[in-house]
Parts: sequence; structure tokens; C-alpha cells
Amino acid sequence: MAPFIVFEGLDGSGKSTQARALYRRLKRRGYPVLSTREPGGTPLGEVLRRWLKGRRPLSAVSELSLFVAARAQLVREVVTPALEAGTTVIADRYAASTVAYQGYGREMDLALVYELNNAATGGLIPDLTVLLDLAPEKALGRKSGELSDAFEAAPSDFHTRVRKGYLAQAAQDPDRWLVLDAAQPKRALSDQVWTKVQPLL
Amino acid sequence: MAPFIVFEGLDGSGKSTQARALYRRLKRRGYPVLSTREPGGTPLGEVLRRWLKGRRPLSAVSELSLFVAARAQLVREVVTPALEAGTTVIADRYAASTVAYQGYGREMDLALVYELNNAATGGLIPDLTVLLDLAPEKALGRKSGELSDAFEAAPSDFHTRVRKGYLAQAAQDPDRWLVLDAAQPKRALSDQVWTKVQPLL
Repeated sequence: MAPFIVFEGLDGSGKSTQARALYRRLKRRGYPVLSTREPGGTPLGEVLRRWLKGRRPLSAVSELSLFVAARAQLVREVVTPALEAGTTVIADRYAASTVAYQGYGREMDLALVYELNNAATGGLIPDLTVLLDLAPEKALGRKSGELSDAFEAAPSDFHTRVRKGYLAQAAQDPDRWLVLDAAQPKRALSDQVWTKVQPLL
Repeated sequence: MAPFIVFEGLDGSGKSTQARALYRRLKRRGYPVLSTREPGGTPLGEVLRRWLKGRRPLSAVSELSLFVAARAQLVREVVTPALEAGTTVIADRYAASTVAYQGYGREMDLALVYELNNAATGGLIPDLTVLLDLAPEKALGRKSGELSDAFEAAPSDFHTRVRKGYLAQAAQDPDRWLVLDAAQPKRALSDQVWTKVQPLL
């Protein structure tokens, strides 16, 4: 199995930029590598993404269920086959997002969230989760212009809870989490990611 | 709150026919009445219905999650507002289908299924659930021509488990379930339903 590396953080934390940087670094060095984003990455996932990113209000249960459905398809159709074929997978969001956003942010039952995540992933745990940690005020400020989806439109105490949810998960599994202060320059961040990724290759 | 009446059973058991018969009976008598079907009945639900009824394979978790998401939206957007406005709601499938099909049929964790159902419905329990009970061989035989969706294509021991799941639920709550032998003539069935519904109006 090739390594499975996940980037997590609030929107505006720079996680997608860092995921891309690592992807390019691996590509340049000739490693087989695949990047995924959640929700999305499968035909069902892309349909659900439009609903989850849309303005039409969804109940918290529907939101949770759609993320889980999209993840289950992604793991089964894309992530697991790639890892088994020796391809490193770099994921922009994974199960930790659901714990942070739906569990801590929306305050849904954490045991239910964990159980659903476990069912959706078939127990597939990332070898490394990189958390781009940033105070919500700074993360929101980085996104220029208007708020772009329902999550960014949620009030700031929501984002404070989400951040707390991320940090709690990182604290529970420090060997497999790398917490970075996302306020650092991009290059400094990508070098710290690279230092941690190299031994996994 | 107006009464909430659900029809359950295997495809081909005649439940949709009986749901329509009750709907027309109430209409003729001047009762405000609304019929729903699952999955469906909301913009999100109809999108998910196409996936759930399609031929593209879904993991058991995705299937469960999509049914739950569709139900959560239906309850919130359609069923609860109608009941609160004094409109009788007649549903072709509801939470019991998920227990029977995903819990017993697909053999997913029953506690998880119940917890998700509870979250999706906000605890809304039907005043009456009518089960059109029929041996799977007979139910499948009633549908003419080709198998029409993924559920009907599943092997017969699957349907035997689903039936068992329905009967188990009915046995747990006999006051709110009416179990009918679906092999009876349509008119005899609709009369038995009507006898049970009248006191609820």
C-alpha cells in the first residue's frame, strides 16, 4: 500500500495550496500520485458536491449523510484501488472534516459521526493528516470577496468549534497528525510537509 | 397534528396501490390529504431517487446515507409542515423501509440504522404503518417483465431478510402497525385499511 496523505483545515487556511504543492513535488520526483477532493471525485460525489456547496438549506442530518455517501464512494472507487496499485493519494479533506464540521461545528452526536465515518471508509486511516491551523478570523479574511458557500456563511463561533474539533483529533493521534501554523509562508509550510512525508515514501 | 399513515412492503406487494386507494377515499370525503413517496418528494430527494433506483453500484453505506438524507429533507420540508397544517399524510415507504432493507436486508448495523432514522425524522413516528405482507416469491412474480431496479435484482434471500425485518418491527409495536396478507383482493385490503384509519381522523 502506498501512503495516504490528507490535508485538513478551514477554508482559507491554505490546505488546498499545500496539497497541490505536495502533489507537484511528488510528480516531479517521479512518484505515482493521485489527488482527490471531498466531497467529489466520483460521479455521485460530484452531484452531491453541488448540493453541499449550494445555497439551498439542508438539514444537518442530510448534510452529514451526503458527505458520508460521497466519501464511501470515493474510498471504494478511487482511493483504495489507487493505494493498492502503489499510487500515493493526496486528499483535500477526508473523514476528519466530518468530525470537525458536522460533529463539532454542527454539534451532531460524535459517536454517530465516528461510526458513519468508519462505515464509509471501511476503516481506512490516513498515514498522515496535515492540519493547516489558523484562527477562524484569519482564515475567513483570506478568502477574497463574497462568502462562497454555506459553510463560509456560518457564524464565527461555528468555525471556532470546527477548529477545536480539528485540534482535538490531532491531539488524540499525534503520530499521524502534523499541525502547522498556517500563518507561515507557503514555502516554509511545504518544506515542513515534505520533511514529514519523505519517510513514508 | 393530522394523522401520519405509512404503507410498507416489498416492491410488488401492492402497497402503492393501497396508498393510492386510501388517498382517494380521504379526498372523496373532503379530508385534506397529501401523499409522498420515498426516496423523493423534495428537489434533493428526487435527485437521490435517480441514484438509488439506478443501475450504478452504490456501497451499502452510500445507499443508507442517501435514503437518510432524502428522508430528512422530506420530513422537514413536506411531512411535518403538512401534519401541522392539519393535512393527513400518506407515505409510500418511510423509516421502516430503511430498517428492513438496509438493516435486515443489507445486514448493516441495526443500532446505526435506528440512530440515523431517529436523526432524520426528528423522532416523528407514524400513527399507523400498514404492512402489505407477502412471500418474496409472490411479490417478485407480481412485477411483470424485467427486474426494474437494484433492489429487485437482489437475490431472494435478501428479500426474505427484508420481510423478516418488516415483521419484526410490526411485532415490536402492534398498536401502530397493521399487518395484512397482501394476497387478498385489493378491495378487501382497502376496507381493512379504512377500518383502521377511521378512528385516527
